[in-house]
Amino acid sequence: MQSYQILETRFARFADVEGALGILRWDNDTIMPAGAAGQRAGQLAALSVIAHELLTAPDMGDLLAEAGSGLDTWQSANLSEMRRQHAHANCVPADLVEAASRAASVCERAWRSARANSDFKGLLPLLAEVLDRQREIGAVKGEALGLAPYDALLDQYDPGNRMALIDPVFASLRAGLPGLIAAALEHQQSRPAPITPSGPFPIAAQKALAERLMATVGFDAERGRLDISTHPFCGGANDDVRITTRYDESDFSTALMGVLHETGHALYEQGRPRDWLSQPAGQARGMAMHESQSLLIEMQACRSREFMSFLAPLLRESFGGSGPAWEADNLHRRVTRVEPGLIRVDADEVTYPAHVLVRYDLERRLIAGDLALADLPGAFNDGIHELLGVTVPDDRRGCLQDIHWSAGLWGYFPTYTLGAITAAQLFHAACRDEPALPSCLAQGDFTPLLRWLRPRVHERASSVTAAEIVRDATGAPLSADIYQAHLKRRYLG
Amino acid sequence: MQSYQILETRFARFADVEGALGILRWDNDTIMPAGAAGQRAGQLAALSVIAHELLTAPDMGDLLAEAGSGLDTWQSANLSEMRRQHAHANCVPADLVEAASRAASVCERAWRSARANSDFKGLLPLLAEVLDRQREIGAVKGEALGLAPYDALLDQYDPGNRMALIDPVFASLRAGLPGLIAAALEHQQSRPAPITPSGPFPIAAQKALAERLMATVGFDAERGRLDISTHPFCGGANDDVRITTRYDESDFSTALMGVLHETGHALYEQGRPRDWLSQPAGQARGMAMHESQSLLIEMQACRSREFMSFLAPLLRESFGGSGPAWEADNLHRRVTRVEPGLIRVDADEVTYPAHVLVRYDLERRLIAGDLALADLPGAFNDGIHELLGVTVPDDRRGCLQDIHWSAGLWGYFPTYTLGAITAAQLFHAACRDEPALPSCLAQGDFTPLLRWLRPRVHERASSVTAAEIVRDATGAPLSADIYQAHLKRRYLG
Repeated sequence: MQSYQILETRFARFADVEGALGILRWDNDTIMPAGAAGQRAGQLAALSVIAHELLTAPDMGDLLAEAGSGLDTWQSANLSEMRRQHAHANCVPADLVEAASRAASVCERAWRSARANSDFKGLLPLLAEVLDRQREIGAVKGEALGLAPYDALLDQYDPGNRMALIDPVFASLRAGLPGLIAAALEHQQSRPAPITPSGPFPIAAQKALAERLMATVGFDAERGRLDISTHPFCGGANDDVRITTRYDESDFSTALMGVLHETGHALYEQGRPRDWLSQPAGQARGMAMHESQSLLIEMQACRSREFMSFLAPLLRESFGGSGPAWEADNLHRRVTRVEPGLIRVDADEVTYPAHVLVRYDLERRLIAGDLALADLPGAFNDGIHELLGVTVPDDRRGCLQDIHWSAGLWGYFPTYTLGAITAAQLFHAACRDEPALPSCLAQGDFTPLLRWLRPRVHERASSVTAAEIVRDATGAPLSADIYQAHLKRRYLG
Repeated sequence: MQSYQILETRFARFADVEGALGILRWDNDTIMPAGAAGQRAGQLAALSVIAHELLTAPDMGDLLAEAGSGLDTWQSANLSEMRRQHAHANCVPADLVEAASRAASVCERAWRSARANSDFKGLLPLLAEVLDRQREIGAVKGEALGLAPYDALLDQYDPGNRMALIDPVFASLRAGLPGLIAAALEHQQSRPAPITPSGPFPIAAQKALAERLMATVGFDAERGRLDISTHPFCGGANDDVRITTRYDESDFSTALMGVLHETGHALYEQGRPRDWLSQPAGQARGMAMHESQSLLIEMQACRSREFMSFLAPLLRESFGGSGPAWEADNLHRRVTRVEPGLIRVDADEVTYPAHVLVRYDLERRLIAGDLALADLPGAFNDGIHELLGVTVPDDRRGCLQDIHWSAGLWGYFPTYTLGAITAAQLFHAACRDEPALPSCLAQGDFTPLLRWLRPRVHERASSVTAAEIVRDATGAPLSADIYQAHLKRRYLG
């Protein structure tokens, strides 16, 4: 037990440094004065190095090897997660960590103007540097973990997940997607087009309503905040979950649906087991499970017709609206509008997976060396055209639109759609086990949903794999079937 | 040079951790949700321990001993400061650091209710624990630095200062103070009593004016912020100087004069030499010099009759005021009102030193063991009565009013009045060297003042001692003469 206790102390300090980083990053992205950027980057880098040093201290290998006897279930799971985190951190040589980090930060800066100018050629050498370093990291992590390089990268964001698990799920989705999109568009044509409520919608009123909805869903305002940032996110620290949004005075839905999405992330963070908050086993179970929680709240619960019955009168009260544009049916048609487009982050629920399928396919081929980086724009445009039927006019709205590849986030994209699939499967099981759930949503009562989620997802944290969470909660392994059924029910009437 | 370069790298990382701590403390005191308090305390403690470990790494002694050849003036000064910081950090055993920190945090918590209940007896055992640990720290630091225990504590806040330097300055001040207070009150009687402008004064208007005044004085808003906290402070990090205030809708002067005070602190932080920001030689030269900069802006510059000519029309414009209450003469009489009272932080410029003289006298006797802690309330009340002529009715408004002693800040109090004395001497020299300075203040033009301060105070940072800064800038060693002359000129007409 002694080695294990030392490890718990080490990881608690690691969690404190990570928590400090979470608050400093939040500050960086919300309220930091512009002139502090350079120095803040230095502070973030210093704390990241300190965190990495804590994880890779010379005696960690021995401590991790010695610990293991006399542990209970959670402690054993905790030790496994410690070993996984240590393996990820320890197997990459310091000079590769440094080179990858430098390449990504140089490329990310250049990407901002390259995107604005649709200049893929100009970005190519910097992006190639990022890709090469990611391929190296994939190779050394794969070697250490016994995985293919892409699986090793994926494991950083979605522990335990593998291409072999994803591929059949995505294949089934891909097969049905073009037909589903066409059918949804056809069905949409047969219904009245939604009316747009006319604004302006004052930011103060939007914020007040957003905070009211956060409380409705279950956000604990004593342990978190809502603020403004250019790109909405959920960050901060364990007991201080900070979500952000951006407001548009001419349209309230972007901010409100965005806040509900981030509130889903926040509920997961706030619902993790208190006794394990500072330990690896108490962390959220990867980015796919995290996205499942945000999409479960946003897409499954809050874009439902039931929730719109609750929301419509609140909207009328908040903005003084009246008339057909403010009826629940119309509002529901607005938040479930399907429109194939070029930009992933603006995509609706039906077309979104197409953006992810294309990226997943491309990034694993790039990591494997089966696709030359110079050929990325063409391959990207072909993939989008094939699945969505739209023609990409330039790289700004094509392969340069996302920050991920420039920022070194390779292996991240599939987690978005895995999250959507997981959300549908979990929500379906929740409605099965809590039959009053949909009618409660129509009253703004999230109690049955949270009562179901807490023990089955949030409180299990990283004590088991994501696959086990899904199987135990729903009775079946992850599959795209329920997700597809959900899309058909909502979009094909 | 090699050891020296390694040390610069170490101290740069130390500065990054300290900067991170500065932002996290600011967040803690301004916008953190209440439920995050426990976890934030853990993060702050972890980073403090990490900073301490950086400073006391096993090889630091050797590096500091080896470095020293081939250094230029700033590098040599930097090495001296590194050695001073290392000596302070390294000579106190870890268990004493821990015991002192725990005693202070327990006592500080208990002090809040003890103050509310005037319960000195109840606090006594906890305060005795704090004092005992501070006496121990004074003893071991004194041993290591070759100083008396109180001087060793003082050196933490005002490097290089000693009781032997303070005593003659304070003695001269003390001798004249009761007479000066009496004369100021008599003179005040002979003039019309100031009229109070009637509010309310909306917080948004106060904040807008505060930010305008900050810019007027020279605050760089690209590298700092203004926010709200219960106790105003200047914190944050090097390139991100965060000042706070609190607003009272019935009185604008508290917030505005407070903001000007904190802006003085901020100008010092923003004016330190950029090439040395991350190094010990580039830090502000102690708390007395820091307070001199806040008081120079607030008391010397902004409570002057000249500045009131500039401020009066701005106030009328901001709050829609008119009439005699809004005239510069009346406003000046308001911000220079003398009234002996019980509370240090509410004291005016004339009576403030009395509060400090009493505390300085008591805390050095307590550290020396010449006064029993149980006798503190009586001695405190006697001291206040002797210098101010007011009777302390209870310990809440007596020796329990300040957080310092409970929080373990022993040796800090004299820096307030040393700051006031230094401010007067510096401002007097600035007006001598820049004769247009007062008339510029009447136009809201701080250029001559900043032009004078930057090279003589801010940019020298910790490359020389505070005594050298004062002597080089003013041509004379620190004395209370100019400060007393200033008080006579302003308050005796």
